[in-house]
Amino acid sequence: MPLGQFLFEYLYRCGVRHSFGVPGDFVLPTFAWLEKSKIQSVTMTHEPGAGFAADAYSRINGIGLVCVTYCVGGLNVLNAIAGAYAEKSPVVVVSGAPGRKDREKDPLLHHKVKTFETQRRVYDEVTVATTVLLDEQRAASEIVRCVEACVRHKRPVYIEVPHDMVDREIPTTIVATGVAEESDPHTFKAALDETLALIRAARKPVILAGVELARYRTAGLVVRMAERMNIPIAADLLSKSAIPENHRLYIGVYGGAMSSDEYVRKYVESADLVLMLGTFITDMSMGFYTAKLDRRRTVLATTERVSVQYHRYESILFRDFLFALASAKIPPKPFKHPNPHAVPIPLRKSERRDRLMIADVFRIVSLHLDERCCVVADVGDAIFGAVGIRSARQAQFIAPAYYMSMGFAVPASIGVAMAAKKLRPYVLVGDGAFQMTGVEISTIVRLGLNPIILILNNDGYGTMRKISNGSFNVITRWNYGKICELVGGGKTATVSTKGELDNALSRARNAREVHVIEIKIPRNNVSVQLARIGREVAKIRGWKKGSV
Amino acid sequence: MPLGQFLFEYLYRCGVRHSFGVPGDFVLPTFAWLEKSKIQSVTMTHEPGAGFAADAYSRINGIGLVCVTYCVGGLNVLNAIAGAYAEKSPVVVVSGAPGRKDREKDPLLHHKVKTFETQRRVYDEVTVATTVLLDEQRAASEIVRCVEACVRHKRPVYIEVPHDMVDREIPTTIVATGVAEESDPHTFKAALDETLALIRAARKPVILAGVELARYRTAGLVVRMAERMNIPIAADLLSKSAIPENHRLYIGVYGGAMSSDEYVRKYVESADLVLMLGTFITDMSMGFYTAKLDRRRTVLATTERVSVQYHRYESILFRDFLFALASAKIPPKPFKHPNPHAVPIPLRKSERRDRLMIADVFRIVSLHLDERCCVVADVGDAIFGAVGIRSARQAQFIAPAYYMSMGFAVPASIGVAMAAKKLRPYVLVGDGAFQMTGVEISTIVRLGLNPIILILNNDGYGTMRKISNGSFNVITRWNYGKICELVGGGKTATVSTKGELDNALSRARNAREVHVIEIKIPRNNVSVQLARIGREVAKIRGWKKGSV
Repeated sequence: MPLGQFLFEYLYRCGVRHSFGVPGDFVLPTFAWLEKSKIQSVTMTHEPGAGFAADAYSRINGIGLVCVTYCVGGLNVLNAIAGAYAEKSPVVVVSGAPGRKDREKDPLLHHKVKTFETQRRVYDEVTVATTVLLDEQRAASEIVRCVEACVRHKRPVYIEVPHDMVDREIPTTIVATGVAEESDPHTFKAALDETLALIRAARKPVILAGVELARYRTAGLVVRMAERMNIPIAADLLSKSAIPENHRLYIGVYGGAMSSDEYVRKYVESADLVLMLGTFITDMSMGFYTAKLDRRRTVLATTERVSVQYHRYESILFRDFLFALASAKIPPKPFKHPNPHAVPIPLRKSERRDRLMIADVFRIVSLHLDERCCVVADVGDAIFGAVGIRSARQAQFIAPAYYMSMGFAVPASIGVAMAAKKLRPYVLVGDGAFQMTGVEISTIVRLGLNPIILILNNDGYGTMRKISNGSFNVITRWNYGKICELVGGGKTATVSTKGELDNALSRARNAREVHVIEIKIPRNNVSVQLARIGREVAKIRGWKKGSV
Repeated sequence: MPLGQFLFEYLYRCGVRHSFGVPGDFVLPTFAWLEKSKIQSVTMTHEPGAGFAADAYSRINGIGLVCVTYCVGGLNVLNAIAGAYAEKSPVVVVSGAPGRKDREKDPLLHHKVKTFETQRRVYDEVTVATTVLLDEQRAASEIVRCVEACVRHKRPVYIEVPHDMVDREIPTTIVATGVAEESDPHTFKAALDETLALIRAARKPVILAGVELARYRTAGLVVRMAERMNIPIAADLLSKSAIPENHRLYIGVYGGAMSSDEYVRKYVESADLVLMLGTFITDMSMGFYTAKLDRRRTVLATTERVSVQYHRYESILFRDFLFALASAKIPPKPFKHPNPHAVPIPLRKSERRDRLMIADVFRIVSLHLDERCCVVADVGDAIFGAVGIRSARQAQFIAPAYYMSMGFAVPASIGVAMAAKKLRPYVLVGDGAFQMTGVEISTIVRLGLNPIILILNNDGYGTMRKISNGSFNVITRWNYGKICELVGGGKTATVSTKGELDNALSRARNAREVHVIEIKIPRNNVSVQLARIGREVAKIRGWKKGSV
């Protein structure tokens, strides 16, 4: 079978249905195979957008693909792939490259930087596996090795395809597959027994559901466990929506000063046992170190290890551990949710003409969300404020909540829409981030997608202005609505009162095309979360000068 | 002196007057020092644009600066810096980073990928020197070491500034400087004697002036030598305009099938001695291997070595060698330029209503150029066709003529304008490349710059369509003129006849603001150069399937 055919047939078999990329001469023969395959290829306007789209797609679909040319494409998508590594998103990067024959005399070929190894070496720093397909005999097993690593680790891998290799016939009969891993039974039992004893003894336990539950599709096990034991569940910034937010045991997003509300914050910090399941402990999810979680009362189980209080167990499979917890017989705890199925306060007629503050935006958006929506938040107050979004229905949430790369949301909404046609993206993006990658609305229009794009316009880099002000935080004032005229599609609105936003959202919901809503926010108005973080971090003096 | 103060004072002393970047939390304290310095900081909309602007600035100014935050900024500007490496442009990359204290326990800090070393290791692949300023004692000498390497090699360097280091006092008295290099006198004499003997014996020598003449400011020596010996000079795609194009000995751009015209191609290929001075021999500058240059009749002198026919000399300083050549006494050759000061054919009244073909665009632009203009060409037919641009006056030319990264030109025009206020950029950019980075017109408007941006709209990835067609070459049809309304400034025009383009250029020349001229080109019309390359490469069958 030709290499190109095998590559895309195998990726299709692994679940890839769409590819995001930009063509270029070294990758054209690979694109020709992609076009012949059952995978739909989406040409984006710029590689950074292709990376973000593939990342978001992978989070929802379980695996995704970005296809680019050598260096001018591959290095241009690197930042997005680094973000996918940091936040555990399984993206396969396929890059075209100079031919095997081209490499013989080490000439200066266009797109080359130092050596023909440059791009692969760069990708070694942001992936869990890389390969350059220079050998027909090993090509198929190398592809399988990389894609298996991608799926196992939920992190990006890099496959470099020299343009003179992709049409070659390769043997595909003998294909190595990784051995199935197993938990060490004694270690497993010790960790489980200790954890169960702690749960049994706890009067006020809480589950902090982490992002790995979403990536490894294991949230269901945790919900089952929580229901059997009647333990409330909180999420963190990165795992928001991994547990259905309308579940009767769900209490909100915990993150120290960045928590969604005071109830969840107090509950988690006063719990006598915090079960962190699949959690990344990052400065962001811990509210810039304002979180108060004592190791003495925590169990942290991830795909890498199980840590109980001050000691750790290795060689335990995450899924096995969760399955055992979900099956354990422990009497239900006395927890009673004071306000299950929390609904944001409906908009009163008397306030419709009030000027919009940023907190209102999140509240009004919450009122419009249902299970067919996916909120996609960009960096800055779009993400800090989105912590507080709470819908009566089960809406999805995606954001670069740890790596925090600006410009994520608009292109990511394309990945979301392609991965799940029934989900409508609600994009929350600051004006600065929109200027970075907002022209991907061009791709949205061509594909006939219909996200609702909410530009939070506070006239510049608002979050940075709060930390350190200077002329460097000034950006050009755009007429954001004109983006639709530029790219030839979509509807726009500009709103500055609560009623206008509510009306614009209603119109957008009932329409079939992309809507761009510019929301004018007072220049110095910030979300409750950002304001609280600012205050509390200022108190922890000298902790981190020059950062939030 | 505080580290931040030293850093920017030293860069200022080395010639940096402007910085291009995007702020972010880890780099904010560094931006605060930048703001206090004499260097003007320019916030771009997106890091790729900042990289291209700094690259173009460095080519004209001799050194440039890009200032970004950790990973989400640094990795996002990587492709542009890789291009600067490939084409020898001296850019200093200053990146903010997590603090020295933050690194102690290796926590998950936002913007981190694998380890705190990730970004530096990535930059090792695209720079000639890197440093992380974690030690007050060595900070100043590390800065000096990197900047000296940048200036010596005319290639990028990377300086990582942890946010908790930039305000610290550092010792600046003892600062190491690199030792001055010298040529080895015996090797030097042997190489020079052999070269001079070849020149003396040649009846029809030609100089192929390379890009290093521009980078090392040594074009004047070569012109002096050419004048004394009456030897004609050709440039290549990357060095175009290094030698004033209205010089009486200048004969055009040589590049095999991609030469500016048949005269220069035939002259170079029939010469009995080709003096390649400061030349990069790349697939692009050699017209995809259609160039016919026999090593038996070449001397290649660069900053790395002197190669005479089939042997090479090391340890020779490029400048010394050029100086000796320029001072040598050799009787003038009998060359007579058949058409010095070549002027493109003026536009006749009878043809003003003719539909524009792409070749006409380059001819009409040529008629408008003078010594206050700098043509900035993007990738695709913008660059292939621009080979043929020839003005009666001395216009500058800048393009990513080897690395070939799409999206270079619009942001690069900002670097050009900041580096030389008297130069007006004429940007030639395809529709695909414009969609990548064209929104940097936002920055152009805010800075009050006035480039003339010519969008060559042939409805998609035209160059790639010629190689391998498929749905992946389709891009969205934009109303390009609307970009001015989006970003709030500039004038637009759409043209499709020769007269309309001529009029639009005249209006733009007389105006003080940015002009965006959309040029509608028939979908399958390509430049003479691209057509010729296509034909000749097709003849060299099997040479490089799937590439141009």
